[in-house]
Amino acid sequence: MARTQGSHSDITGPRIREAALGLFARHGYAAVSMRQIAGEVGVQAGALYNYTPDKQSLLFRLMRDHMQDLLAAYEELEQFDDPQDALRQFVGFHIRFHLQRPDEVFIAYMELRNLTPENFTEIEALRRRYEDSLESILRIGQQSDQFSVTDTKIATLAVIAMLNGVITWYRSGGRLSLDEVEQVYWDMVRKAVTA
Amino acid sequence: MARTQGSHSDITGPRIREAALGLFARHGYAAVSMRQIAGEVGVQAGALYNYTPDKQSLLFRLMRDHMQDLLAAYEELEQFDDPQDALRQFVGFHIRFHLQRPDEVFIAYMELRNLTPENFTEIEALRRRYEDSLESILRIGQQSDQFSVTDTKIATLAVIAMLNGVITWYRSGGRLSLDEVEQVYWDMVRKAVTA
Repeated sequence: MARTQGSHSDITGPRIREAALGLFARHGYAAVSMRQIAGEVGVQAGALYNYTPDKQSLLFRLMRDHMQDLLAAYEELEQFDDPQDALRQFVGFHIRFHLQRPDEVFIAYMELRNLTPENFTEIEALRRRYEDSLESILRIGQQSDQFSVTDTKIATLAVIAMLNGVITWYRSGGRLSLDEVEQVYWDMVRKAVTA
Repeated sequence: MARTQGSHSDITGPRIREAALGLFARHGYAAVSMRQIAGEVGVQAGALYNYTPDKQSLLFRLMRDHMQDLLAAYEELEQFDDPQDALRQFVGFHIRFHLQRPDEVFIAYMELRNLTPENFTEIEALRRRYEDSLESILRIGQQSDQFSVTDTKIATLAVIAMLNGVITWYRSGGRLSLDEVEQVYWDMVRKAVTA
């Protein structure tokens, strides 16, 4: 590939992704055409195919990159030995990471049905890896008698679902600051998994 | 309206609703046409307009009826004075009611963005009424020192979000029975709102 072409793609790629993300979140994947995405970016529809082979790949890359960013950001955090500290960190991290990405969160939930089976399997594996990081905190806390849950797998899903709820209602500048919201959720999560 | 026409609508109405519900859940509201819905029912597109003025009304009625069914079913339940009993009943009711209606639940979350502002306001008011019934349980328990939450409104949203998570992962015939799942969630909810 010629250098100019590469440079062009480097600039256009993020704009295509941003346009696709916004349109998928507003109208749904099935209702959005490659032509619409191109129109939003301000390029010919044909130019999109330099960047992505098709709309499915575009959706898949948005969802995969979102999960990979999530995993990378989480894995960069300080490692706590104490499961209580690790859980508290997880709660704050999860809320803050996702609040910054409402469109990605919406699509991650809503558009799973539109992935091909192979792409679905790959996204599910990434999601499982993230869930496993929380489940291992709960399991360690369970072994040291700091936590007491009937089922670490279900507790994992319950905690994540509870935290995801924040994203649907929290607005900055509202009644509670983000620190307060984090504190309220931490309080409930801690109690929910403690004896 | 002639009697035969009325009878015809009585039969076709539920089939239109069922077809629209399934298509909206599979493809998303914006991607589904009235023609497709008519095709699924096996009638001419024109026949749909005897039942509904437009696609927006169809979506709104699906969402409104779902919320009204939920409120009616909840209000028919036994009234418990003890907030702990009332909360336990809420947990079991919420899980079981929604597990039977996965398409309605998916649409209720996903298609809010496609409601007109007036329709959105009406759906939100119904949703608020349902949330208020849980919040009043928490508030009574808070006053009698049986519960201890920092913020009854956030605790309400957190409990509902946690329970909604069940609907995304529970499959009958899986590792745990519905009774076991209900017990595990009740255990976590109870602890989360207790001192």
